[in-house]
Amino acid sequence: MALWSGRFEENTSNFALTWGASLETDKAMAEHDIAGSLAHARMLSEQGIISEEDFSAIEAGLDRILGQIQNGTFAWDGADEDIHMAVERALIADIGPAGARLHTGRSRNDQVATDIRLLAKELADDLLSENRALRDVLLDTAEKHVDAVMPGYTHLQHAQPVLLSHHLLAYFWMLTRDHTRLAAAYDAADENPLGAAALAGTSYPLDRERTTELLDFSATIPNSLDAVSDRDYLLDLEYACAVSMMHLSRLCEEIVLWSSSEFGFITLSDAWSTGSSIMPQKKNPDFAELTRGKTGRVVGDLVSLLVTCKGLPLAYNKDLQECKEGALDAADTLLDCYVVMKGMLATMSVHRDRMAAAARAGFTAATDVADYLAKKGMPFREAHAVVGQLVLSCEKRGCGLEDLSLDDLRAASGLFEADILGTLDPESIANARTTYGGTALDAVLIQLEEAREVLEADYLW
Amino acid sequence: MALWSGRFEENTSNFALTWGASLETDKAMAEHDIAGSLAHARMLSEQGIISEEDFSAIEAGLDRILGQIQNGTFAWDGADEDIHMAVERALIADIGPAGARLHTGRSRNDQVATDIRLLAKELADDLLSENRALRDVLLDTAEKHVDAVMPGYTHLQHAQPVLLSHHLLAYFWMLTRDHTRLAAAYDAADENPLGAAALAGTSYPLDRERTTELLDFSATIPNSLDAVSDRDYLLDLEYACAVSMMHLSRLCEEIVLWSSSEFGFITLSDAWSTGSSIMPQKKNPDFAELTRGKTGRVVGDLVSLLVTCKGLPLAYNKDLQECKEGALDAADTLLDCYVVMKGMLATMSVHRDRMAAAARAGFTAATDVADYLAKKGMPFREAHAVVGQLVLSCEKRGCGLEDLSLDDLRAASGLFEADILGTLDPESIANARTTYGGTALDAVLIQLEEAREVLEADYLW
Amino acid sequence: MALWSGRFEENTSNFALTWGASLETDKAMAEHDIAGSLAHARMLSEQGIISEEDFSAIEAGLDRILGQIQNGTFAWDGADEDIHMAVERALIADIGPAGARLHTGRSRNDQVATDIRLLAKELADDLLSENRALRDVLLDTAEKHVDAVMPGYTHLQHAQPVLLSHHLLAYFWMLTRDHTRLAAAYDAADENPLGAAALAGTSYPLDRERTTELLDFSATIPNSLDAVSDRDYLLDLEYACAVSMMHLSRLCEEIVLWSSSEFGFITLSDAWSTGSSIMPQKKNPDFAELTRGKTGRVVGDLVSLLVTCKGLPLAYNKDLQECKEGALDAADTLLDCYVVMKGMLATMSVHRDRMAAAARAGFTAATDVADYLAKKGMPFREAHAVVGQLVLSCEKRGCGLEDLSLDDLRAASGLFEADILGTLDPESIANARTTYGGTALDAVLIQLEEAREVLEADYLW
Amino acid sequence: MALWSGRFEENTSNFALTWGASLETDKAMAEHDIAGSLAHARMLSEQGIISEEDFSAIEAGLDRILGQIQNGTFAWDGADEDIHMAVERALIADIGPAGARLHTGRSRNDQVATDIRLLAKELADDLLSENRALRDVLLDTAEKHVDAVMPGYTHLQHAQPVLLSHHLLAYFWMLTRDHTRLAAAYDAADENPLGAAALAGTSYPLDRERTTELLDFSATIPNSLDAVSDRDYLLDLEYACAVSMMHLSRLCEEIVLWSSSEFGFITLSDAWSTGSSIMPQKKNPDFAELTRGKTGRVVGDLVSLLVTCKGLPLAYNKDLQECKEGALDAADTLLDCYVVMKGMLATMSVHRDRMAAAARAGFTAATDVADYLAKKGMPFREAHAVVGQLVLSCEKRGCGLEDLSLDDLRAASGLFEADILGTLDPESIANARTTYGGTALDAVLIQLEEAREVLEADYLW
Repeated sequence: MALWSGRFEENTSNFALTWGASLETDKAMAEHDIAGSLAHARMLSEQGIISEEDFSAIEAGLDRILGQIQNGTFAWDGADEDIHMAVERALIADIGPAGARLHTGRSRNDQVATDIRLLAKELADDLLSENRALRDVLLDTAEKHVDAVMPGYTHLQHAQPVLLSHHLLAYFWMLTRDHTRLAAAYDAADENPLGAAALAGTSYPLDRERTTELLDFSATIPNSLDAVSDRDYLLDLEYACAVSMMHLSRLCEEIVLWSSSEFGFITLSDAWSTGSSIMPQKKNPDFAELTRGKTGRVVGDLVSLLVTCKGLPLAYNKDLQECKEGALDAADTLLDCYVVMKGMLATMSVHRDRMAAAARAGFTAATDVADYLAKKGMPFREAHAVVGQLVLSCEKRGCGLEDLSLDDLRAASGLFEADILGTLDPESIANARTTYGGTALDAVLIQLEEAREVLEADYLW
Repeated sequence: MALWSGRFEENTSNFALTWGASLETDKAMAEHDIAGSLAHARMLSEQGIISEEDFSAIEAGLDRILGQIQNGTFAWDGADEDIHMAVERALIADIGPAGARLHTGRSRNDQVATDIRLLAKELADDLLSENRALRDVLLDTAEKHVDAVMPGYTHLQHAQPVLLSHHLLAYFWMLTRDHTRLAAAYDAADENPLGAAALAGTSYPLDRERTTELLDFSATIPNSLDAVSDRDYLLDLEYACAVSMMHLSRLCEEIVLWSSSEFGFITLSDAWSTGSSIMPQKKNPDFAELTRGKTGRVVGDLVSLLVTCKGLPLAYNKDLQECKEGALDAADTLLDCYVVMKGMLATMSVHRDRMAAAARAGFTAATDVADYLAKKGMPFREAHAVVGQLVLSCEKRGCGLEDLSLDDLRAASGLFEADILGTLDPESIANARTTYGGTALDAVLIQLEEAREVLEADYLW
Repeated sequence: MALWSGRFEENTSNFALTWGASLETDKAMAEHDIAGSLAHARMLSEQGIISEEDFSAIEAGLDRILGQIQNGTFAWDGADEDIHMAVERALIADIGPAGARLHTGRSRNDQVATDIRLLAKELADDLLSENRALRDVLLDTAEKHVDAVMPGYTHLQHAQPVLLSHHLLAYFWMLTRDHTRLAAAYDAADENPLGAAALAGTSYPLDRERTTELLDFSATIPNSLDAVSDRDYLLDLEYACAVSMMHLSRLCEEIVLWSSSEFGFITLSDAWSTGSSIMPQKKNPDFAELTRGKTGRVVGDLVSLLVTCKGLPLAYNKDLQECKEGALDAADTLLDCYVVMKGMLATMSVHRDRMAAAARAGFTAATDVADYLAKKGMPFREAHAVVGQLVLSCEKRGCGLEDLSLDDLRAASGLFEADILGTLDPESIANARTTYGGTALDAVLIQLEEAREVLEADYLW
Repeated sequence: MALWSGRFEENTSNFALTWGASLETDKAMAEHDIAGSLAHARMLSEQGIISEEDFSAIEAGLDRILGQIQNGTFAWDGADEDIHMAVERALIADIGPAGARLHTGRSRNDQVATDIRLLAKELADDLLSENRALRDVLLDTAEKHVDAVMPGYTHLQHAQPVLLSHHLLAYFWMLTRDHTRLAAAYDAADENPLGAAALAGTSYPLDRERTTELLDFSATIPNSLDAVSDRDYLLDLEYACAVSMMHLSRLCEEIVLWSSSEFGFITLSDAWSTGSSIMPQKKNPDFAELTRGKTGRVVGDLVSLLVTCKGLPLAYNKDLQECKEGALDAADTLLDCYVVMKGMLATMSVHRDRMAAAARAGFTAATDVADYLAKKGMPFREAHAVVGQLVLSCEKRGCGLEDLSLDDLRAASGLFEADILGTLDPESIANARTTYGGTALDAVLIQLEEAREVLEADYLW
């Protein structure tokens, strides 16, 4: 019989019990459950609600159970609905009536909420740490190739030359924002629901501030109904994961493109590639694709929880049991993807020559030719039209803008003079973009320094 | 070393291999993989591409492996990426070079597609079967309470009395549509991709019609690129599951409402309820809530796959590996929920008196009073206004429309006559709605008969 | 005052009325609303529920209103909640009491359901038609370039040469499946809810079969509660749109890739490209990108409706008002994207030489070399390893497999003989894949014929 | 011809131009576009890039255009792709070459990003303000009914009595978290992308800090590629809206329940209700339902943008044009819903007697009876079982726990003494829950004070 079965005349159907149980998912929070119980019991004893002897017995019993779980000797019982029942049952079996006093002034509702919050904090903490590690690798990679030139794209068309380092730094900043979102999710989880009991608080003289302190929460939740029914912090965590996965999907798309025969900008290391069962020549960017594909999974996790929470009246409803699995899945997925991205980036070979050659193609100098005219006084819109015509004629002649003679140029506009020559190679063009945040090497070096400072500050988080 | 590692100089990182592996999920299709390989090998031998001896060895070897997998003695190797590699590796270890010939004219791409389609058909088939079983229970339950009256609601406000059987039949028809969707998903899966090889077909003289026949597919896919990259049938399956879960969520919402102290229309059996760890009086409709909550999970599965497929170029991309887990999850979830719904419905107690009493409250006779006036010649819009005023005055007097005297009524309109009296009880009102599809008992009996016929036809599916 | 305000003592807040109104969205179904009212009125008169005179007045009045709406002279009144109220108000103002009799035996609930179903049928019909038109263009384009060779990709790595026509046909088959889904959505909508009244049917002797016939529905919905609360057909429509958008997003991704400087396989016409405000050389595949981007929009529409319907008790709830806008948006979006895809495909230039050259790169002959060895008796897995080593050495020497001499080849395996030479160019390799559904020209011609037959059958839909 | 058409030989298809245009959606950011242009022009002039005369002409011209837009006299031209082109075209038409110099050192890419960020800040600001206004109403409503007792629910079963004020405060805290999320979205938008030009920065000596200051951004984006392609702040805004809508959907579900005949806890004012076209008695909580239904819409908006952004390579891609409409829709929807909730809450009538009577039903005293025994020394798990049996016997006798005599109680356990009597009414039970965050009146008064302080601090945001 279940611990709650006093008023029941018939057993719950075995199918239903097994199906409604969350024990497998719950095992991820076994340690958090025991930590929560220890804090609750210590506070109960300090408040004189249970005796010191009972507390000592509970503490010793929970320690034994924790040890058994950690070393794999704990006797899981399929009949336990969840981790909370499993631990309480084992405790009562071990220490008797003192164990049955642990649940005084507590309900599974606030107990569950406490455990999930402790777990969410741990997940967020792990993600924050791997996020920083990946950003470190991005900075290292940017520094390693700091002056390599590549085509900058818009609409996947060559736009203007940029530095590879500048391009990689764009991802650094995306991931920096993800760090902010993950930290916000951590903060959202960092409030203590224990003491809310089933939904209304309790008549036992609990000291909620004390469990807040013992469990290292930074605040105590001020409303018991909200305490047992709020899962926003899991939404925040899943959302942070979904956006970060979206960012990784963009980088992975580029890794896939750059690894293609057509682009040929990079070669992934054998260690971060796979082959084909039928095509002996293949070396596939499998892990970039899989990361990109897993974006769907994490977006799905976020949607799941939003759908589940929609329209639920207060306070706790069983629907909420569904919330843990998705959050664990989202966090685990992103954590692994961070590791994978580090591995791919740190070991890939960059083909600077292919990149530089590509940076020349596609008339990437066109903006600078128009700017040249504009600086000589031609309104920009006119200059744009003049250069558009030049591009069209180059395309027909099969040459680039940098291949045009001064005569060719002056035929289009008398404003062209000799100083235009020799300024249209990709390196010169990139290095001319010296505004703050621009792609000139000097600007990128400043950006790198700023990025290092931001990352250092995040390490102190 | 992996079976595809000929051109690799370095091993793939262990982290990446483990992370990229799908072996755990794949185990659900071990039998399908072996069935696919057997069909392929038989066809190869019939076409003279491999020898009969090789085929015999392959057949015997695959049978042994199947046996081992089924009785749990198969030696899984964590190094295997997926089920396909696991089986092929074991086969080669067992029978030598003949095993190495199995993959002739086949790629993992068409092999995977074949296996997933076989699995999808099985999942759809199981769901179709449980869908019918649940509809059977719905019809039984409707018949059991065929003339019980309850309030019909719009906006959760009392609208007009309806029969509980009529109400339950609404869900029968929703689930009938789900049967259609599940069958469409089955049909979508029921086409043979084997022989598409990696993406382009093969130069071996395969007989694709033969494997179509051997594997009991109803058609052969006419384009090899589509064959290896299409996962629409999984989307169809997940979509059918999502809509059906949405339907169940509506019924579960009602079960939760009806079980509440305020409604008190039904009591779930102890076997399909749970209690509270802290509140001794509680008997919770946990399984209805959990089913409702799992709607989010299945919608999430559908979203995941749509996101994953978005923007993928042809043909196979590793992103697609993500597609299996969600489809399995969606199908398993719905399957269990069908079982749970059967259990709850078949064992719940219906409180006819509470329902009938409620059917009286909320002025559910108002439409009929307005219709009475309209039938006597008053334009309906006017009649509506007259009755609106009557309701307002009843509300202030704290009585119902059926409590008004003929004088009261005639004060509102001279069209009222004695024949109005005695027609305003819920049973009379419900039974007056005799149009096809209406809630009168006679109409419901016809509907029940029609529903039984539809269900019988679906059993022949 | 609203037509339903009899029992109200206070007006509804103007903010609320305006916000709750759906008139703007509803205008798309003005004609359907009038068609539904005409059928209802005719049936009422045929059943003797209203007089023939009343029907004549209603018919003439509705015709006038329809004319006004069509020629833009109808006096919309912001105070009308929805199209149904707008038309009824105008009718009563026009013809008096007869107009007030139109709503006899009908509720807005079944009226709305009827209108939306008529609209959904029209939307599905338009989409089916444009789907076929786009598939026609795909077939034309495939025929135009029937023997152009390009690299076939898996993981965006060169895999094996394929014909461009074969590649385009893959999309034909995807869109053929979408036709099936759209037709299923049409069928789902094609059932008559009229006569369900508010939720329970009515005591008026309606002939529901008659309105089914008059409105050209193919069946009459057998349950009144289901009739007013079912929106599955909109889900089916949105789902069909979402999957088809996903398919288009894949083709658009390829158009973007193929238009890039690196691929250079196609050039979009000026008519289906745009430029840049700052970069004079740019010619962007804007419309392919926008189509790809709009995939998100339609997936969002589908999710919206699933979320909205989740957990709603029977029967009609106001939440359902939200269902129309998303369905219209999804259908309109897909319809436009079909037109855009036709335009882009029909006018793009294909650079056969660039494609053919690319088909040579990336060792696309490797599978055939392995197959060659396998056909000479070497187990395929060994052959795969031998060719993997050959690829590795070619890569180091900077040559292709087709550049190896017979001596080079024989150094790797004695099974190589002179017959291997001259079979490794992309055309030969592609044309060797003669299995059904393969990429050989002969196989593709058969596939094209089959596709034309399927399309012709769909035109008869 | 478009302003970018220099290199084009053929006009873009009219269908495509109209379809690809975003002018209608863009109108929401006309003022932001002009503000951005003014800041850019002023900075250009201060940096000596354009002359002071040119700036004066630009400033006067933009002021004229702004005036025309605001008073509705601006001549919109359907041929304009977007607001940026519309304004620039009008400016050049008005002031000639000076207008053509405005776009110097700027691209539509950074211009668009600037405008959207300015718009996003405004939307977030409006939402923050209405969020606070709604929380004010929640606090007022809680104070008005501060000591009204109602049943607290878990699983929609009566659990323990709570105060209505406590219940409403739970929503206050949810919305407080939403304020935090909205503020985070504001902060995410509050960085200046102007000066990033097309994607790489520019060779003009722009002073980006100056436009940051002029446009009241709090920081300058340090990477030009990120500046033009980042839309995270819109995701943040849509996510904040989605979570807040989910919270409102929960409150609306309760309003719908509480307005039902079965609950009867509240009556919405006529001003915030609607009637039925057929059922004269109906008064429907339409606006609560519609708010609940619109949750789907906003979740859909969030999903749309995540799907759209997935897998996009750097930098700007046209897909991103889709991002604005969803963000505007999400923000507008939530804004209206905040207003609607305020209206409903401020004007609803609360039926304290119905609530109090309900708080007695369902054995809501059971936990306290168990706690009584536990406080007398019985382990809580035993006490739980004893009370479970008492509940079962009460249920069979048709009475409540408070109706049991001391003898009845002592028959179950000798620990019961006279002090149990008179403590089991809902008010006493609620008021016994005095722990921080509990539902006792004293605790709620403290909570209210804390809530007021938090809200005051948020007003200073």
